[in-house]
Amino acid sequence: MADSENNRNEISQLGKFNLIHKLTEGFPTEQASTVAGLKDDAIVTDFDGEQTVVASKLFVENIHFDLTYFPLKHLGYKCAGIVVSDLLAMNASPSQLSVNLAVSNRFSVEAIEELLTGVRAVCHYYHLDLAGLDVTSSVSGLAVAITAVGSVEPARLTRRTGTHENELICVSGDFGAAYTGLLLLQREKQIFEATHESHPDFEGYEYLLERQLKPEPRLDIIEELRKNDVLPTCMTMVSDGLASSLLHICNLNGLGCTIYEKKIPIDQLTFDTLRKLKIVATTVALNGGEDYELLFTIKQDDFEKIRNIESISVIGYMGEPNGARNLITNDECQIELRAQGFQEVESWK
Amino acid sequence: MADSENNRNEISQLGKFNLIHKLTEGFPTEQASTVAGLKDDAIVTDFDGEQTVVASKLFVENIHFDLTYFPLKHLGYKCAGIVVSDLLAMNASPSQLSVNLAVSNRFSVEAIEELLTGVRAVCHYYHLDLAGLDVTSSVSGLAVAITAVGSVEPARLTRRTGTHENELICVSGDFGAAYTGLLLLQREKQIFEATHESHPDFEGYEYLLERQLKPEPRLDIIEELRKNDVLPTCMTMVSDGLASSLLHICNLNGLGCTIYEKKIPIDQLTFDTLRKLKIVATTVALNGGEDYELLFTIKQDDFEKIRNIESISVIGYMGEPNGARNLITNDECQIELRAQGFQEVESWK
Repeated sequence: MADSENNRNEISQLGKFNLIHKLTEGFPTEQASTVAGLKDDAIVTDFDGEQTVVASKLFVENIHFDLTYFPLKHLGYKCAGIVVSDLLAMNASPSQLSVNLAVSNRFSVEAIEELLTGVRAVCHYYHLDLAGLDVTSSVSGLAVAITAVGSVEPARLTRRTGTHENELICVSGDFGAAYTGLLLLQREKQIFEATHESHPDFEGYEYLLERQLKPEPRLDIIEELRKNDVLPTCMTMVSDGLASSLLHICNLNGLGCTIYEKKIPIDQLTFDTLRKLKIVATTVALNGGEDYELLFTIKQDDFEKIRNIESISVIGYMGEPNGARNLITNDECQIELRAQGFQEVESWK
Repeated sequence: MADSENNRNEISQLGKFNLIHKLTEGFPTEQASTVAGLKDDAIVTDFDGEQTVVASKLFVENIHFDLTYFPLKHLGYKCAGIVVSDLLAMNASPSQLSVNLAVSNRFSVEAIEELLTGVRAVCHYYHLDLAGLDVTSSVSGLAVAITAVGSVEPARLTRRTGTHENELICVSGDFGAAYTGLLLLQREKQIFEATHESHPDFEGYEYLLERQLKPEPRLDIIEELRKNDVLPTCMTMVSDGLASSLLHICNLNGLGCTIYEKKIPIDQLTFDTLRKLKIVATTVALNGGEDYELLFTIKQDDFEKIRNIESISVIGYMGEPNGARNLITNDECQIELRAQGFQEVESWK
């Protein structure tokens, strides 16, 4: 489904340098800080008086994505967007991307171009320069490694450490939608495998699919915080579930926390869809993963500055040193916050 | 063979954050420019008045390495070293590494630690900080993505472009040894597969195996050039074969070239071993790949400054704009320089 089989060019015929030249034709250089990259052995950046920030991630077929329902264009968009989100979590302005692909002979030149179309959309939308591209072969399947480079004023850098007792725990956006979208796509795949027929009707579920297939880096949040003169005391990007990320922040800072079930932002469609599937929405919001939202803490004094920012929710506060990690449920019970069902661990079993 | 099966810990039992914590324990922070990394979403560097240089590469099992004869420790060393070499090709000083692994359940915690031991050796020897590590799962096999970060004074940056007609073409080290080492290892694997017995006797061939299993980044060459006040006009790292890299430099600079067969540095052991195997040494030196040596051009006036540097050879000169790419053979014939047998293209067929 990813390849257009009618007009297929073999990578082996084209050759590596020609392939890379062809794939990079549509990428302009927009950033003044881009000194070298696509035609060289490495990316070179020059940020005047700012810190360079570099993020890298590796995505592997049938672990991070299933191409039976994941269009290659969306895959390119999603992978690039996730690494950009890592930079945003440091409060950095992203400026360059580099992409390393390992592709088996199952993929045509057109298929790889399709993937790059998604990368180009991220570059275009967030004004990034593609500053490195390499394509190598793989025995089976596709692996996508992406590195993003950006910069930040040293005084505005946010890290995973730096929060203190009683500071407010904030999140951007809503949680659980991407996982719910994945459940819908997986259900459709099962129907297809059983009946060899597929007539998916996703009407009304677009938001859930979009959250799964095309998550957006929250540059808007970074800009809102800056505009409102708020510097988070610590920040991270939530990829493996809100609970897992928050517990990691607690561990790194040696603090407890208390969050409220009723404060966790869950979109109404996510909630309704999960109810139909007989799944508890809070569990998915805490553990589903792939939300790619920002989790950060702010000083209590900054609350007034963020209370009117629409896509930010305060979900609780940091606790005392070595304190408990509490979830206050909707029926006012206090239970221990735990991270469940880390998907990648599942596939290691 | 890579795993120590007796005392095997499952990654699934340990959990991702614990695994990463365990794997990064032995890595100190040595570089003043390392602001953030291992505990954060991204690497942050701060180079005063210098340019940041970032290189990334992706290595995939059974394409770039065969674990039946490639010890994991050497694999870690080699992958990290190659990306460091990419930075050196820009004349940059490497300072940070980040590693992203995708591993199937075939690999134990001990196996991954073994791989990291090799990465640590590179960090130790070249004074690099491990500033990022992520481990994710894979359906089958191992993929290793590495990003290296470094810095360079803007005036000393070397790129793949910048050379002119009549400038001298130089290389570091010697060529063809890594490929010859690979042939020896592959022959041993075939014997083992046919007889289920293996008594490899590599005595006397250590240099060839070392070039295949443990190639060294040529930091010494970068330092020698600096010490002798030579700034290459263009530079690249040779990974897919000397011919391929040189032709790429010709294409990017729009120039021809002339190189001399007798000037191509080939180690005597490489030459003798290839003769026994009935393979023409020059073909392997030009096309074998995995040499990870530096290819660069210098102004004619700089010749005196480099002529006494032991590991640098002048192999020819750049030709006129859009000129021919010539190889002058040992019997004084002029033939067209061509790149053959690009291994990765082979596996795309």
